[in-house]
Amino acid sequence: MKLATLDNGTTDGRLHVVSRDLSRAAPAEGVETMQALMENWSTHAPQLEAQYAALNEGEGQTFDIDKALAPLPRAWQWLDGSAYESHGDLMQKVFKMDPVPKGRPLMYQGMSHEFLPATADVPLPSEEDGIDFEGEFGVICDAVPMGTDTKSAMSHIRLIVQINDWSLRAVAPVEMKTGFGWVQAKPACSVAPVAVTPDELEGAWRDGRVDLPLIVNWNGKHFGAAEGYHMTFGFHDLIAHAARTRNLVAGTIIGSGTVSNENFREIGSSCIAERRGIEILDNGAPETSYMSFGDRVRMECTTRDGAPIFGAIDQKVIAST
Amino acid sequence: MKLATLDNGTTDGRLHVVSRDLSRAAPAEGVETMQALMENWSTHAPQLEAQYAALNEGEGQTFDIDKALAPLPRAWQWLDGSAYESHGDLMQKVFKMDPVPKGRPLMYQGMSHEFLPATADVPLPSEEDGIDFEGEFGVICDAVPMGTDTKSAMSHIRLIVQINDWSLRAVAPVEMKTGFGWVQAKPACSVAPVAVTPDELEGAWRDGRVDLPLIVNWNGKHFGAAEGYHMTFGFHDLIAHAARTRNLVAGTIIGSGTVSNENFREIGSSCIAERRGIEILDNGAPETSYMSFGDRVRMECTTRDGAPIFGAIDQKVIAST
Repeated sequence: MKLATLDNGTTDGRLHVVSRDLSRAAPAEGVETMQALMENWSTHAPQLEAQYAALNEGEGQTFDIDKALAPLPRAWQWLDGSAYESHGDLMQKVFKMDPVPKGRPLMYQGMSHEFLPATADVPLPSEEDGIDFEGEFGVICDAVPMGTDTKSAMSHIRLIVQINDWSLRAVAPVEMKTGFGWVQAKPACSVAPVAVTPDELEGAWRDGRVDLPLIVNWNGKHFGAAEGYHMTFGFHDLIAHAARTRNLVAGTIIGSGTVSNENFREIGSSCIAERRGIEILDNGAPETSYMSFGDRVRMECTTRDGAPIFGAIDQKVIAST
Repeated sequence: MKLATLDNGTTDGRLHVVSRDLSRAAPAEGVETMQALMENWSTHAPQLEAQYAALNEGEGQTFDIDKALAPLPRAWQWLDGSAYESHGDLMQKVFKMDPVPKGRPLMYQGMSHEFLPATADVPLPSEEDGIDFEGEFGVICDAVPMGTDTKSAMSHIRLIVQINDWSLRAVAPVEMKTGFGWVQAKPACSVAPVAVTPDELEGAWRDGRVDLPLIVNWNGKHFGAAEGYHMTFGFHDLIAHAARTRNLVAGTIIGSGTVSNENFREIGSSCIAERRGIEILDNGAPETSYMSFGDRVRMECTTRDGAPIFGAIDQKVIAST
């Protein structure tokens, strides 16, 4: 099934069930918010699945996708991986960083008290910070006990989402060098309007990975179409990694990191930093600038036939002051 | 005034006002939880101050401090600094890490969906992880808009707390080396039962710093009494740093990092890693082991006259499985 959260004036919004083609929606019955659903998934899911079937038969109201907030407008925990090795290896080579240890997922804890709606303007303080997008996939989990193994972790994946992890590239290496990870370099993320259960992806949900391309446009120009499947670690691996020394609260969002493929020269990238890295490697210097205020980025993942899944992220960066 | 959250069977508990000497308490009038108070501090504070005055005159019930949860049992955001330069410099020297850039606060985002009560057992998966405590101070803020400067940041500090930032030292350097910061190395923190407004510290709240020692005992033996004042950056600096590229949600907790003084050989330490660092520096190898299951750590900060402020953290580490 497909779910979205519509703006009703509250921080957490109102959970809605959305039809497969994203044309119709109805307020979720028996559960007000996405967070409440994640805390009691098994209780509420059957009723919502019944609503979903009715919506696909033509019931419900028009789904006003532009009124959607992030599916989970705020979360108790956001842990973002960096699971595409082609991206990490390129960055390491270009920026002459220490080699990243293999065999172990990379992950940081990011800001989770605000996820921006997919079409909201994105206020940031300075173009000098090197404003960049990072197109990625994510999953929303129910409660995961400490010590959950990789195999059991798979069953805790309740929903799949599509994310833009906004990044400030002038700040990122300064924070990274401290070993403490990013605070200033990682402001609020944006999330595509619709969250979907894994079964919605049919065969394209494989091995805890999304086997579909993420199409990225920057100011209307094609920028990348990297395939989601090529994660070194699947989402279930990332969940087990995170849960080794902590319980994961229901509604934890786990991210894949920027989607990247080895053939990035042909297929393009999901962030500007990667394109600049390729330019540095090939020509000795970057040619592409980071974003300017007023720039737009659009990201969408559809089925191979072009049918909508998550809806699109389509946003403009603006000055915060 | 002084505030605590008592267990009432809910995740967020019930906010109480506590008398200055921690002997009596009463349910907060007009506001149920600490999070709700942080979201509307100015509205609720006058009534709570009146309750506080009455408690100090002998009203209220006995305060059962062992029933206290963390003052804010879960928070939308926990940003921990490392503001004691003597600690950072020692760690850098001992572990031959890259020099930390000066003039800029160190900070990471940590797990915030669960803060353990001060007397609860602490379940962790393995002694092999190098179980360590980190005694520190923290502040709880109301909403801080993006771009707030250092001076304005001071007025957003509503409460001061005392924290044990549990750390797993065998994992920490592995995660630090990636530049992504800590996930597995930083499980849930513990917090002393009582949060206090800055005026409660009188002259000991100076320049956004707590000018009092933190007394640490490990298995009943004195371990350290480092002075809180010696932060390179005050809490107002840490808040402004965090708010440069994001809004800070009401109820954000900001930590000082492990309390440490330059004369650590005389005054002791607030974490085992620092004592081991001194041993490595002085003798070439560490002598002190990390914690074993069954070990207890006690941390308390009182006035210079020995009057209680936050209550004590006094906990046992146990195996999680």
